[in-house]
Amino acid sequence: MNNISTYIGEHKERFLNELLDLLKIPSISADSAYKKDVLNTADVVKTRLEEAGCNHVEICETAGYPIVYGEKIIDRNLPTVLVYGHYDVQPPDPLNLWNSPPFEPVIKETELHPEGAIFARGACDDKGQMYMHVKAMEFMTKTDQLPCNVKFMIEGEEEVGSSNLAVFVKNNQEKLKNDVILISDTGMIAKDVPSITTGLRGLSYVEVVVTGPNRDLHSGLYGGAVANPINVLTKMIASLHDENNHITIPGFYDKVEELSKEERAEMAKAPFSLDAYKKSLDIDAVYGEAGFTTNERNSIRPTLDVNGIWGGYTGEGAKTVIASQAFAKISMRLVPHQEWEEITQLFKKHFESIAPEGVKVEVKPHHGGQGYVTPIDSIGYQAASKAYFDTFGKTPIPQRSGGSIPIVSLFEQELKSKTILMGFGLDSDAIHSPNEHFGLFNYYKGIETIPLFYKYFTELSK
Amino acid sequence: MNNISTYIGEHKERFLNELLDLLKIPSISADSAYKKDVLNTADVVKTRLEEAGCNHVEICETAGYPIVYGEKIIDRNLPTVLVYGHYDVQPPDPLNLWNSPPFEPVIKETELHPEGAIFARGACDDKGQMYMHVKAMEFMTKTDQLPCNVKFMIEGEEEVGSSNLAVFVKNNQEKLKNDVILISDTGMIAKDVPSITTGLRGLSYVEVVVTGPNRDLHSGLYGGAVANPINVLTKMIASLHDENNHITIPGFYDKVEELSKEERAEMAKAPFSLDAYKKSLDIDAVYGEAGFTTNERNSIRPTLDVNGIWGGYTGEGAKTVIASQAFAKISMRLVPHQEWEEITQLFKKHFESIAPEGVKVEVKPHHGGQGYVTPIDSIGYQAASKAYFDTFGKTPIPQRSGGSIPIVSLFEQELKSKTILMGFGLDSDAIHSPNEHFGLFNYYKGIETIPLFYKYFTELSK
Repeated sequence: MNNISTYIGEHKERFLNELLDLLKIPSISADSAYKKDVLNTADVVKTRLEEAGCNHVEICETAGYPIVYGEKIIDRNLPTVLVYGHYDVQPPDPLNLWNSPPFEPVIKETELHPEGAIFARGACDDKGQMYMHVKAMEFMTKTDQLPCNVKFMIEGEEEVGSSNLAVFVKNNQEKLKNDVILISDTGMIAKDVPSITTGLRGLSYVEVVVTGPNRDLHSGLYGGAVANPINVLTKMIASLHDENNHITIPGFYDKVEELSKEERAEMAKAPFSLDAYKKSLDIDAVYGEAGFTTNERNSIRPTLDVNGIWGGYTGEGAKTVIASQAFAKISMRLVPHQEWEEITQLFKKHFESIAPEGVKVEVKPHHGGQGYVTPIDSIGYQAASKAYFDTFGKTPIPQRSGGSIPIVSLFEQELKSKTILMGFGLDSDAIHSPNEHFGLFNYYKGIETIPLFYKYFTELSK
Repeated sequence: MNNISTYIGEHKERFLNELLDLLKIPSISADSAYKKDVLNTADVVKTRLEEAGCNHVEICETAGYPIVYGEKIIDRNLPTVLVYGHYDVQPPDPLNLWNSPPFEPVIKETELHPEGAIFARGACDDKGQMYMHVKAMEFMTKTDQLPCNVKFMIEGEEEVGSSNLAVFVKNNQEKLKNDVILISDTGMIAKDVPSITTGLRGLSYVEVVVTGPNRDLHSGLYGGAVANPINVLTKMIASLHDENNHITIPGFYDKVEELSKEERAEMAKAPFSLDAYKKSLDIDAVYGEAGFTTNERNSIRPTLDVNGIWGGYTGEGAKTVIASQAFAKISMRLVPHQEWEEITQLFKKHFESIAPEGVKVEVKPHHGGQGYVTPIDSIGYQAASKAYFDTFGKTPIPQRSGGSIPIVSLFEQELKSKTILMGFGLDSDAIHSPNEHFGLFNYYKGIETIPLFYKYFTELSK
């Protein structure tokens, strides 16, 4: 393809400012207080897709936040790439740990990003990565180099489980018909080590409530005589792992894909420094399931983590109270073959069964999704590999991610096409954390690499 | 004594309105946002003590909130009663469970209080009970029936550990010299069953922090590979009780007073219905240390309860995060002979020792106090017993309370006098809980009973 770097160089500042404008809107899908902002973000994405050269763009209403759909069909005989991304973001809290306000993006130099990185909630996940595709589209249409058909499907509920997207996909199979799905919502191994994500973990996310006495009680008058819902909750959660950090829910591991010795040896070849890993997190030791390495624990093994816990008095000072209720949000990352809905049911059944007398326990399923593995011999994978090679000078490494994009396995099931996960983020980008950021190098490199995927995918499809 | 009920009858409405005015001030000592209100409350108490007939009242500054001291010395040869109470209150949260705003007192009829009860934070603990003493004082001075000397010491930090009162008492032994200390900050067995509290539990209150990675992490990318501070905290807390609900901290029980079979048999005679207890709390079973009854568990046995826990994402919806830190407030109720400072150190040492690799653990002691037992053959106890008999027509039952008034054992140590705990509250008053209330019957009965204590105590001291 011609002039990609020249075009980027000429429009560098505008490409950045458009993204910064998008990042200023707090499109927090998990918190209904931001409803107007989420809707506003969808409108902005629609306008940007039109400007980038889509000849049909629409806001598709759902039971929740809308999906922005855009397309440019140039020839029905050419292949079609479906780009998926999301315009919603994670809640920014804890706010006090941000060095700059999460919705007032700033460019700052870091050790890893001497050329600067954008600090804002959503900078990497996923506004920044999604917008690379919009700008790649602009390049291809403005320079008359779009080699195939393109469809965009940008949703606003990825951070809350994509339940309405699932319905939309099932009901719009013809409209969404494609030959490959392209997503940038994952990371690379390192800034100079491109990689393609070939596996994702599934997810089951639940909220639990333990209810004891019908009101908060004085811990002096009642302490020791009634079940304290917080103490009970800690005991119940603690019992979910055994001394080897295996999960104790009956049936939990029944369908877990066990990798062969050879596959694990292959995985172990990826560059990884345990010391650097510990140093970057400021921890003296890693922790996890006995018998597995750190890279295995966060990719090929299922996990159970408490994402939030609360109950009783959490303010300043002391209050001698026994809370009536205690709460936790718990998520399980699942590996291929584990069925998320089945795991949710296994959790619910087990957690309710271990409640002691004196309390009531409720398990509310939040959302979930299947794990996913993509083959590396597909045309899509090969096209992505060649595109990365052109811009990074290195063949990307296939890697399994510990994260989940629940919708990916649904895409395969409903649309019968494979997904290619071309991520440009880095583990150090602090997605879902305070001070999320995205390197300018990564942003522009993404815009440069994506058009090459279209080119090679079209060529290899012939 | 003459005309007590007539006097109360004539001033009933004013007695109530003065208390309601006091309850309107949110004197929450645990939350520095209410500093002005706490100080304002001290000023109101000072004015009320002057109006009630004290001839010297002063605001005594401390490193924290001031102590209101008042006195009326009529004859150095007569005995002196020192009244202790507190003008600060517990935080009112969770606010959403209150049926009326906690600092807008209202009178409502209840099943137990057909003549009405005052609903407000502090109604019983301790503004209502403390103010009974101010009004009893008014009656005795206005009708020239004060039989002895009186000193008042009303503090503003009882709900946060009374640490500055301890200093004040140590430094003012001459000023506070007395023959008996009188406190109404406990309860009675039932509305028609007066009782005198003869034992209190001690307290050790700590806050713990578990720190893992240096920032919140994405639970997909890091889940399973690093110690999750919330999971670790639940495991650590769960391990503090064994399967019989014994506390596992080494040395914790070493100094616990073991009651004889006879003493326990005596205790078991107090009227108690387990069914009514469970029904009032809406629980299907009680829970606690194996080998002890409910009434033993909450009075003669030490306990460990989590009073608050928090960490990670606790907002609406879902956030897939591994929190950097997790927190808990934990209190232990202690029995006579357990040294609270020693127990705090035992807790700290043990809790830090069980931290797994990969996290740092910090234990911050909040405050504490010693348990207390008072003999029933003292003049003070006898005077209280006769006073209750006169107004209730029944001899009060001696009982041990599960609660703590940490300052009581300090009083004995520093001032060499015994404390009489003449409580007029009920367990159902919901102190420290939403919808705290205090029966009008109890309030007026207290004002009626207290002067009789002065009378009998003076007579018995001759």
